[in-house]
Amino acid sequence: MSVPRIVILGAGYGGLMAAKGLAKELNENEADITLVNQNGYHYITTKLHEPAAGTAHHDHARISIPSIIDSNRIKFVRDCVTGIHLDKKVVQLKNNDSLLYDYLVIGLGSVPETFGIRGLLENSYSIRNINSVRIIRQHMEYMFSRYALEKRQELITIVVGGAGFTGIEYVGELVDRMPELCHDYDIPLEKVRIINIEAAPSVLPGFDQELVDYAVKYLESKGVEFIVNTPIEECTEDGVILKGGREIKAATVVWTGGVRGNKLVEDSGIETMRGRAKVDRYLQAPGYDQIYVIGDCSLVFPDENSRPYPPTAQMSMQQGKYLGRELAKVVRGGKMEQPFEYKPKGTVASLGRKEAIGVVGDRKIIGGTAALIKKFIEIRWLFLLGGVSLVLRKGTL
Amino acid sequence: MSVPRIVILGAGYGGLMAAKGLAKELNENEADITLVNQNGYHYITTKLHEPAAGTAHHDHARISIPSIIDSNRIKFVRDCVTGIHLDKKVVQLKNNDSLLYDYLVIGLGSVPETFGIRGLLENSYSIRNINSVRIIRQHMEYMFSRYALEKRQELITIVVGGAGFTGIEYVGELVDRMPELCHDYDIPLEKVRIINIEAAPSVLPGFDQELVDYAVKYLESKGVEFIVNTPIEECTEDGVILKGGREIKAATVVWTGGVRGNKLVEDSGIETMRGRAKVDRYLQAPGYDQIYVIGDCSLVFPDENSRPYPPTAQMSMQQGKYLGRELAKVVRGGKMEQPFEYKPKGTVASLGRKEAIGVVGDRKIIGGTAALIKKFIEIRWLFLLGGVSLVLRKGTL
Ligand SMILES: Cc1cc2nc3c(=O)[nH]c(=O)nc-3n(C[C@H](O)[C@H](O)[C@H](O)COP(=O)(O)OP(=O)(O)OC[C@H]3O[C@@H](n4cnc5c(N)ncnc54)[C@H](O)[C@@H]3O)c2cc1C
Ligand SMILES: Cc1cc2nc3c(=O)[nH]c(=O)nc-3n(C[C@H](O)[C@H](O)[C@H](O)COP(=O)(O)OP(=O)(O)OC[C@H]3O[C@@H](n4cnc5c(N)ncnc54)[C@H](O)[C@@H]3O)c2cc1C
Repeated sequence: MSVPRIVILGAGYGGLMAAKGLAKELNENEADITLVNQNGYHYITTKLHEPAAGTAHHDHARISIPSIIDSNRIKFVRDCVTGIHLDKKVVQLKNNDSLLYDYLVIGLGSVPETFGIRGLLENSYSIRNINSVRIIRQHMEYMFSRYALEKRQELITIVVGGAGFTGIEYVGELVDRMPELCHDYDIPLEKVRIINIEAAPSVLPGFDQELVDYAVKYLESKGVEFIVNTPIEECTEDGVILKGGREIKAATVVWTGGVRGNKLVEDSGIETMRGRAKVDRYLQAPGYDQIYVIGDCSLVFPDENSRPYPPTAQMSMQQGKYLGRELAKVVRGGKMEQPFEYKPKGTVASLGRKEAIGVVGDRKIIGGTAALIKKFIEIRWLFLLGGVSLVLRKGTL
Repeated sequence: MSVPRIVILGAGYGGLMAAKGLAKELNENEADITLVNQNGYHYITTKLHEPAAGTAHHDHARISIPSIIDSNRIKFVRDCVTGIHLDKKVVQLKNNDSLLYDYLVIGLGSVPETFGIRGLLENSYSIRNINSVRIIRQHMEYMFSRYALEKRQELITIVVGGAGFTGIEYVGELVDRMPELCHDYDIPLEKVRIINIEAAPSVLPGFDQELVDYAVKYLESKGVEFIVNTPIEECTEDGVILKGGREIKAATVVWTGGVRGNKLVEDSGIETMRGRAKVDRYLQAPGYDQIYVIGDCSLVFPDENSRPYPPTAQMSMQQGKYLGRELAKVVRGGKMEQPFEYKPKGTVASLGRKEAIGVVGDRKIIGGTAALIKKFIEIRWLFLLGGVSLVLRKGTL
């Protein structure tokens, strides 16, 4: 007698929480659980700005998947998903055979949203995964290493496109890195330019004004230049061209301006907005039974008339946890009892290692306190993934 | 009453030994000693292959000049020499005023010899100084970081042109670095190609055959490919083209195939061969009084019918030491008593951190013993420069 097959695509925040939750709820006679991920490791997206700036080794931002799942309960397939065929209930893989499923959970994360900016994909980098941040760091250091000989300002000019959450965290990290980097390459610190460009009227759009002011003041005091209200129109080999025609020459351009859902979701035929599936209250893909979409691939609205929640790790985790509990009921022949409800716990943005700003509950926090809370949030994720032993192995304060 | 002005150009092995020797022999009423160098630091050329491969930080291969000279006796001018006017007894500097001298010591080191190979200067790197090795390392790492995404073999192919002393030492160091580098970028070690190309019929031309065999066997066991008897004909953006037309694609090409004297020597009107002054037995530039040329800028012959000694740190140091002693006599109104005589003490080439080959006196040494002796040679140089305290600060075993 065969048991239902649950296939989970992507070992990100959402996918891992779902897999671990299902494995806890269901025993082996009740379901086969397969987790597919293109790398053998999970990357801690919320830490990627650190290796991208070079303040931490990228190994601090990844965790071996086999080390944090119970291989008796979850079958891990390391492969790249190349297609999802909802009609045939088949997932196409690059190297292995395709997979058949009864229940499918899609948590494949996001890709950069270019907003049609010309040359962006070709000429800029983005903070997406371990591969991309290694390249950013090495590219930047290669440019800095050339400065002593070539003396061209653009070699030590870094443009960060987008002053949202990721952009600000990356800029904050760069500020921390520069003294050491400049020392290494005999560059006077004040020669380096870090320019953060934002199309919206303000840095950190949507954030509390007092906190935004704190962040801007702090980063400006470290030499960061902000250009707001100014969309980037084109990204070239030499730098960026802003609306109105102004050109900024920079050898390193990092784009953090926004994300859209993984293209595989759109390609599968699921209805999407910016590549993200407008899931129902039970996280089901609209029009499909037993297909669930979570994390950055999904779009959740607080209510009919509001803008959707932004894609965050926090949202992904709550969705994954929800599915672990509720999907188990469906697999057992029951049905989902409660609809998914997002409970925002707050947001903290780091400004380098020792500064941060944020809101927790309805309290604003800044400075060292906020930086500490940021660390606790990271440690909590490690704890959820691998218990105390993983915290001890990977946690840093 | 003004005292004679001695100007020493270059704080390399030769220049530093000369400056320190003269400062010891002569008191301040006897001579003004000025040392000119383009950087504020001396670089330990014999260690540069380590930061070039990334096995050591480049700070291990440089020493602040003010920290190792007595500023009461030697005036240090940090500037770039742009011209030497022998007729007017003037040295032209880039940023400061020009310098007048009565006695001039030229120890400006060497530049890569291209042997007319097309595209070499534009498309390859060379292990010359701190700037150049930082670039090599960062360039290589940037290429490796891109491999995981682009999967092009040339990104992780390194061509080293020249299998002389520097070439072999660099290849040995690369071999030591690769396991860590491959781990960092998730590259299977066996995919990396390190190809060492030599025009002469054998690796390490001129070295004892038994030692050469040992080196080749060791390096080949670590995956290095040797191509001998094959000149590089052209260096392109994509790699190198060998005589006969074979192309090897490589994103990183490092040229170690030979050096010539600093162009300033030739430009000053001194008679040169491959940019090196054919000095007389007292290290004087032919046809000029009170102009001395040492180190890689000079050419010394064992006797009339032999080939010149190769340019080495050992030769430079002995020349510098000689001048410190003998030039002092001339400055005091006497004359040089003994001609310069080079006393080769042996040669050791490292093959990474734990292996080496060499000849000391008439004994051949290999393996760990040779590696240890190599370290002692380095430590001796530190001791000569800055005594025990510098050895403790910079020495590594
Ligand atoms: C620098 C930065 C800082 C951030 N900081 C915060 C923060 O402080 N708080 C917060 O809440 N959010 C933060 N976010 C956002 C958060 O990281 C994302 O919302 C979250 O990672 C989304 O989780 P997910 O489960 O949808 O997918 P992800 O965590 O992105 O995981 C997707 C997984 O799918 C895999 N995958 C993708 N395509 C394929 C394929 N074709 N085949 C197989 N596997 C595939 C990927 O390798 C990856 O393992 C930050 C993001 C960035 C970039
Ligand atoms: C990787 C490597 C390994 C080596 N290993 C050995 C070894 O084991 N044993 C050995 O004996 N030899 C070795 N050599 C050779 C040795 O390093 C050289 O022969 C030696 O450095 C020459 O000394 P020098 O005094 O002539 O000049 P250098 O030591 O090259 O110093 C020249 C100085 O002049 C300065 N300078 C140059 N141009 C200007 C300018 N225009 N204005 C102002 N300053 C200027 C430079 O900055 C530098 O400080 C090695 C070389 C390399 C590259």
